[in-house]
Amino acid sequence: MHRCQPPDAVVWPQNVEQVSQLAALCYSQGVPIIPFGTGTGLEGGVCAVQGGVCINLTHMDKILELHLEDFSVVVEPGVTHKALNTRLRDSGLWFPVDPGADASLCGMVATGASGTNAVRYGTMRENVLNLEVVLPGGELLHTAGLGRHFRKSAAGYNLTGLFVGSEGTLGLITAATLRLHPAPEATVVATCAFPSVQAAVDSTVHILQAAVPVARIEFLDDVTMDACNKHSQLNCSVAPTLFLEFHGSEQVLAEQLQRAEEITQDNGAFHFSSAKEAEERSRLWAARHSAWYAVLALRPGYKGYSTDVCVPISRLPEILVQTKEDLKAQGLTGAILGHVGDGNFHCLLLVDPEDPEELHRVKAFSELLGRRALALHGTCTGEHGIGLGKRQLLQEEVGAVGMETMRRLKAMLDPRGLMNPGKVL
Amino acid sequence: MHRCQPPDAVVWPQNVEQVSQLAALCYSQGVPIIPFGTGTGLEGGVCAVQGGVCINLTHMDKILELHLEDFSVVVEPGVTHKALNTRLRDSGLWFPVDPGADASLCGMVATGASGTNAVRYGTMRENVLNLEVVLPGGELLHTAGLGRHFRKSAAGYNLTGLFVGSEGTLGLITAATLRLHPAPEATVVATCAFPSVQAAVDSTVHILQAAVPVARIEFLDDVTMDACNKHSQLNCSVAPTLFLEFHGSEQVLAEQLQRAEEITQDNGAFHFSSAKEAEERSRLWAARHSAWYAVLALRPGYKGYSTDVCVPISRLPEILVQTKEDLKAQGLTGAILGHVGDGNFHCLLLVDPEDPEELHRVKAFSELLGRRALALHGTCTGEHGIGLGKRQLLQEEVGAVGMETMRRLKAMLDPRGLMNPGKVL
Repeated sequence: MHRCQPPDAVVWPQNVEQVSQLAALCYSQGVPIIPFGTGTGLEGGVCAVQGGVCINLTHMDKILELHLEDFSVVVEPGVTHKALNTRLRDSGLWFPVDPGADASLCGMVATGASGTNAVRYGTMRENVLNLEVVLPGGELLHTAGLGRHFRKSAAGYNLTGLFVGSEGTLGLITAATLRLHPAPEATVVATCAFPSVQAAVDSTVHILQAAVPVARIEFLDDVTMDACNKHSQLNCSVAPTLFLEFHGSEQVLAEQLQRAEEITQDNGAFHFSSAKEAEERSRLWAARHSAWYAVLALRPGYKGYSTDVCVPISRLPEILVQTKEDLKAQGLTGAILGHVGDGNFHCLLLVDPEDPEELHRVKAFSELLGRRALALHGTCTGEHGIGLGKRQLLQEEVGAVGMETMRRLKAMLDPRGLMNPGKVL
Repeated sequence: MHRCQPPDAVVWPQNVEQVSQLAALCYSQGVPIIPFGTGTGLEGGVCAVQGGVCINLTHMDKILELHLEDFSVVVEPGVTHKALNTRLRDSGLWFPVDPGADASLCGMVATGASGTNAVRYGTMRENVLNLEVVLPGGELLHTAGLGRHFRKSAAGYNLTGLFVGSEGTLGLITAATLRLHPAPEATVVATCAFPSVQAAVDSTVHILQAAVPVARIEFLDDVTMDACNKHSQLNCSVAPTLFLEFHGSEQVLAEQLQRAEEITQDNGAFHFSSAKEAEERSRLWAARHSAWYAVLALRPGYKGYSTDVCVPISRLPEILVQTKEDLKAQGLTGAILGHVGDGNFHCLLLVDPEDPEELHRVKAFSELLGRRALALHGTCTGEHGIGLGKRQLLQEEVGAVGMETMRRLKAMLDPRGLMNPGKVL
């Protein structure tokens, strides 16, 4: 959806001093600065809409500090979440936030990423303890103070939170101190098919209300299941489906699984199966994480575009039913899947890149869906960010005083408007 | 420690429109504005150091919206956390953040409160979804957009996070949308005495590393235990002690309890006992929450002052041992207790209000302790806030660029410096 606009130059700094010098130089010369991590964002956050210098941070890829007893780690911006978890293997700890793509952790900070584990472990907002940020003019800010990695604080304004989700528009994140979690002793995955979207969502609410500490609870609609069956050789029902994951001791897992099965069956589920072995679990999650490619494979040659709204969980059934009807009315192919425990879902739309009329319909559908979410007290983006395409929706979401406050924040930290221009505001 | 300085006037608005009119009037006339909730804060946040108008928000005490399926609630500033939980009784949900005092929820937002349950349920930072804020000039800001109560969002800058912990210096919080949690099916409390502080902290780390989802894990030193024994008629060992609480199903609780007992015994604990009955549990937590009064009772007529540092958990043993030595060296009476799972602890100091020299020693001790925490990569305040007395420590904690960024934030939202002046910065 967002045509790539290249920068005038790309630089690969090796350390924070070089980032600081580059920022100071660009800023003094009036040159736009575009931070770049892995480029896996979905909202055009790295497009150089006004040209300028792309600062590619992937060469800064060291894990600087690892504090196992304190459940924290300090990473440079080139470290991805998979690389971190590989390093943590056998440590008994892990970093659970997983947006699907193997994104860089500082890029995940910048977009406020979340993903499938957020329902239990939180999003990036809840898992960042401190940030090293090069401000637009080159100054170095440690949002919680240099070298600090405490679990909580009430000291002054929450500068860390200000940069999480700022999409590169307030500064360059050159190191992140993250919170680690104990690795689960054992894991079990379950899948479950339902006669309706309502039954799947009701099950989700009841599971959460019963305080079952579900680690993942993912919704896949009939179109997604059909695509996954074909692409990943699954043999699941083509129906609204939940993929669930539980973490804990063997005994705890058995209990959680039993409760979830009871709840889903009370809601009319017609198929509940579970998998304990690592191989079968991996196969199911690989299918879930390949859903994007599975759906793309439905129409070879087509491009994909993902919506990303989030609503109060009780409003999910109606917006999902509406969305299905909208797809039909617009003659669009779309598959729905989402992090249903958070009320966040994506509609993966297929579009013929040679057909400007279809592209137009996809954009109109996406805006309509954003407005439907706003009307239900929701947000136009649960985890992908505003980027280039949702700036109008952001205005409708936060209102005039909210926008004015955000603009003043931007002007305060980036008075010349050179940090990743054209994004968010 | 903070002598009360009265305002020139106190007003009791009945609704947000009146708050907005009051703010606009005061601001246009250059009159300082001091928001007031329950006045239970410990860092002098409601002192009217420059006079002005105290806006007492306790008459606005309605629960405006309750969304049980969405796990959220909207409260006016006069609602306390106990009042909310009374209303939620029998709903299957609760609001877990509990700072000890029956503080107002919007006041807890303003100070970024946490307390005993934070190790499992997070602090206010993790439990606020949206805020209605009257800005200093009277404008109304909805930090996440009017009426929105989604679980997560990546839409623009995190304005909600900016006001959590802002201590009334950026605006008046007139409503808060909070995240609710499922009430635990069953609860068990355990107490456990140790031969040393190190053994108690090691047990804490091992319990957290073992992914035992402990709901509370509180440390009480020998002085605190002695005071609690006397004041609350307990019969516990006078030794470093942990109070633990577990939430879950009966089966899960049995397993958690067994694990915790094994871990503490591996670390040399010499007494482990548990209580399931509500009465006995209440008695233990009442003793913990009365610790302040129990310690005060050690020296009738004395006043209490509480420190509030937080360090990476691995550094707790050394700072606790140092603190004990400092108390001895300074000839001060102090009891130590804390939220050890977060690395946060308090030293309750007793001071003769008629003895300016002792008062001076208490202040010097408190500053020394703050600097010890900073040297160990910690913070000078885990949950009480900066208020009046820790402004110098905040500068040392966040550094020059951090302070400059905070000052610019303050100047952006409150250019005339009239919102709760003299606090934080």
